[in-house]
Amino acid sequence: MTYSISEKLDAIPRAMITKTELLAQMRSFLTADAVLHEAEELSPYECDGLSAYRQVPMLVLLPSTIEQVQKIVKLCRQYSVPIVARGAGTGLSGGALPLQQGVLLSLAKFKSILNVDPLARTARVQPGVRNLAISDAAKIHGLYYAPDPSSQIACSIGGNVAENSGGVHCLKYGLTVHNILELKIVTIDGELLTIGSQAYDSAGFDLLALMTGSEGMLGIIVEVTVRLLAVPERAQVMLAAFDDVEKAGAAVGDIIAAGVIPGGLEMMDRLAIQAAEDFAHAGYPRDAEAILLCELDGTNEEVSEQVMKVREVLEQSGAIEVRSAKDEIERALFWKGRKSAFPAVGRLSPDYYCMDGTIPRKKLPEVLRGIADMSAHYELPVANVFHAGDGNLHPLILYDANKPGELERTEAFGAKILELCVEVGGTITGEHGVGMEKINQMCTQFDENELTQFHAVKAAFDPDGLLNPGKAVPTLHRCAEFGAMHVHAGELAFPELDRF
Amino acid sequence: MTYSISEKLDAIPRAMITKTELLAQMRSFLTADAVLHEAEELSPYECDGLSAYRQVPMLVLLPSTIEQVQKIVKLCRQYSVPIVARGAGTGLSGGALPLQQGVLLSLAKFKSILNVDPLARTARVQPGVRNLAISDAAKIHGLYYAPDPSSQIACSIGGNVAENSGGVHCLKYGLTVHNILELKIVTIDGELLTIGSQAYDSAGFDLLALMTGSEGMLGIIVEVTVRLLAVPERAQVMLAAFDDVEKAGAAVGDIIAAGVIPGGLEMMDRLAIQAAEDFAHAGYPRDAEAILLCELDGTNEEVSEQVMKVREVLEQSGAIEVRSAKDEIERALFWKGRKSAFPAVGRLSPDYYCMDGTIPRKKLPEVLRGIADMSAHYELPVANVFHAGDGNLHPLILYDANKPGELERTEAFGAKILELCVEVGGTITGEHGVGMEKINQMCTQFDENELTQFHAVKAAFDPDGLLNPGKAVPTLHRCAEFGAMHVHAGELAFPELDRF
Repeated sequence: MTYSISEKLDAIPRAMITKTELLAQMRSFLTADAVLHEAEELSPYECDGLSAYRQVPMLVLLPSTIEQVQKIVKLCRQYSVPIVARGAGTGLSGGALPLQQGVLLSLAKFKSILNVDPLARTARVQPGVRNLAISDAAKIHGLYYAPDPSSQIACSIGGNVAENSGGVHCLKYGLTVHNILELKIVTIDGELLTIGSQAYDSAGFDLLALMTGSEGMLGIIVEVTVRLLAVPERAQVMLAAFDDVEKAGAAVGDIIAAGVIPGGLEMMDRLAIQAAEDFAHAGYPRDAEAILLCELDGTNEEVSEQVMKVREVLEQSGAIEVRSAKDEIERALFWKGRKSAFPAVGRLSPDYYCMDGTIPRKKLPEVLRGIADMSAHYELPVANVFHAGDGNLHPLILYDANKPGELERTEAFGAKILELCVEVGGTITGEHGVGMEKINQMCTQFDENELTQFHAVKAAFDPDGLLNPGKAVPTLHRCAEFGAMHVHAGELAFPELDRF
Repeated sequence: MTYSISEKLDAIPRAMITKTELLAQMRSFLTADAVLHEAEELSPYECDGLSAYRQVPMLVLLPSTIEQVQKIVKLCRQYSVPIVARGAGTGLSGGALPLQQGVLLSLAKFKSILNVDPLARTARVQPGVRNLAISDAAKIHGLYYAPDPSSQIACSIGGNVAENSGGVHCLKYGLTVHNILELKIVTIDGELLTIGSQAYDSAGFDLLALMTGSEGMLGIIVEVTVRLLAVPERAQVMLAAFDDVEKAGAAVGDIIAAGVIPGGLEMMDRLAIQAAEDFAHAGYPRDAEAILLCELDGTNEEVSEQVMKVREVLEQSGAIEVRSAKDEIERALFWKGRKSAFPAVGRLSPDYYCMDGTIPRKKLPEVLRGIADMSAHYELPVANVFHAGDGNLHPLILYDANKPGELERTEAFGAKILELCVEVGGTITGEHGVGMEKINQMCTQFDENELTQFHAVKAAFDPDGLLNPGKAVPTLHRCAEFGAMHVHAGELAFPELDRF
């Protein structure tokens, strides 16, 4: 979009070393293939999954041992070189966008599964291991790793921890933070810390949770111990069609209120249904205004009982059709439609902008109505495909960047959606992180005191602001520029900005 | 025990105001009954549930509004007066032990349930609300608050958050941190922050988790929004008796490995069984070496199925007897025995010392054997009563403080138990917190770099160290005195201590 990292607004440190000198230093302990510096080597790293922003870094480093990471970080600290850590680069909020005067520290070579312990139900893995590879390795023991972002084939566990990633199954099984036990991190001083523990709880401040979702701003994750869960005996997907989006939204709350926590509870609206159907031929009802996909998992008896209960709730909530996948093939097909909805919607329009707000579940009907009203106002179509059970919305605004004014209208519309999420008690991000993308909206979500506390925490880990500067937590200057300052009891929340 | 807060070792700030002056300042905005200063008014506050330590504070303050808390904190900051916050004072690790030159800030007047929202399944409450009062208020909606410390009749939700309290049901439903959504806290600057959100996730660093379990060292909790769960349709308790403690320990892992997550899974050994039976007449088998209590909850069908599965596992694990509570009366009786085990054991001996280590579940047989060996070595009997499913041990060491040398032997024994917990990958505390009690053992658990990071986080919230100083996180000086310094690769972990 139209904003970017600005040295002035975002307090980016200035490297005290030239590229040539830094290259020589790094080469003194890294092999040639671990230090990329030519334009053509650097360009694959110029963006992550948010490809609207691109920036080639000064150097890309690909260490393969913890000791090398420690050395790199110590050198960067010594010469005031900003560091952006990167896993698989699938993030959607630009968290791994490089800095021109910084190094891009890729953890791609950290791809070993160190240990799978079926009795303790844990796996100890390096950060570059792909999310799905963990479940693949655990499968032989009847176990799996629950959080399942759409990108799970490609995304890395280190990136999942950095973004506190979610997925379809997070409603029942929690976010990344609920599924990890212990981390090894390298601090900006180059020290190796172990945080969390292999036991149920750990002593001291909860640095494990603090690190999770901190978007590379507090330390470099070099090892992750995850919890594994037993693969459920049975999983059954139901599809319910509605002639009204708000009715579908209300049904979500009704299912939970009936005492059922589905393994997944997803919603798609008309535009998303049609796009997905054209793309994946999932057998979705093309004339419905909305569908819910509800997966129930557990033992055979549990699932049978829940299917009956959910069917009853859905019918009472006004579903015009309720179907259960008749076999594993149909179940996979139902999910294929959902999982391909983003690329499918992408075919409807030259560009789309995917939002990621989260709201209290009971506000779903109200917020969906609000988005529909805004869509009319901004004259931009929206497809909704999202984790309804979590209240985690993913409105996709369709636009054409080549039409004058559409990009600006899209940005304004997106910002309004996030403001609405905040207004109803929700947040500007569910699982994609803030990164570059939503940094201005952080000024809407938090007031000066809260942002100041974030900065203090940041400084407790990274006093010189070298770790992923300009991301996730806006400076008060940026908020002032953005103009979205909180007003508390009629008074501006940033009265002391003159000091800065 | 024999150590205590020391101004030198623990870097306790010195108040820059006399008691008389501070009293006058506090009285200017607090009513007379909210400012206690006479010896007889102060003495009820001289200790919490760890009554071995006692210290009368300079003043006790009982504010009733958030604004009053803000004013108190601002004044204390201005005059460098340390603050110890206190909920119901039931904590077992001395976290609410006052400081002679500090104020004791009681949240006892914050006892309103502000809102119960059955659709969102949340309750917004003041910090002084008793744990059980939340479930009582939610009962009408078929909901309850899951974490259930033994002290739940008396303990406050604010204290639960400060200690990240657990309880019997935490195996299935998580600790306090997994059951809260949003906190309002007053910072040492007197600012009111909202952390977390009413939605499934929140943006920015996870200050909610960081605050939970921070033992009053980062801010004053003035409001808590908790998650509520549906009361299960049915709960069934099974009792299994074993002729060998290690077999019972192994059975715990077997149950979980069979894919069952019980609502509660508790273990008691012979000494605990006999004491509890004499006290509560719960119908426990007096000749067993160990019993497990396993509660299964859910729908009727689910519970029936799980009962069958657990019975099979228990019999295969070598249980000599497996019983199901035949009705609600017997179920309550089984739990009464467990819940009264601590006071029951207290009748066996003039004094006892309750430990709270947590270990990976699979290490239970090994650690129980280790404790038995140490018990023989130190010639002190131990009763084990604990949350076996979580690996959260509560060995009770029985001793007589009047017998020369017994207290010292008890302390040495207790320290060895915690060292063993750390050695097998566990931690020195599960749910009671570090407080005063385990501050020296923190030096065993963490190395200099980790402790330094804790101090940096502390300073990010409380740069002058006024919030509960001397608790939870030891200074490097204390660790040096304690002598339990980590040795990394043959080198002392605190080489730079001379700087301090």
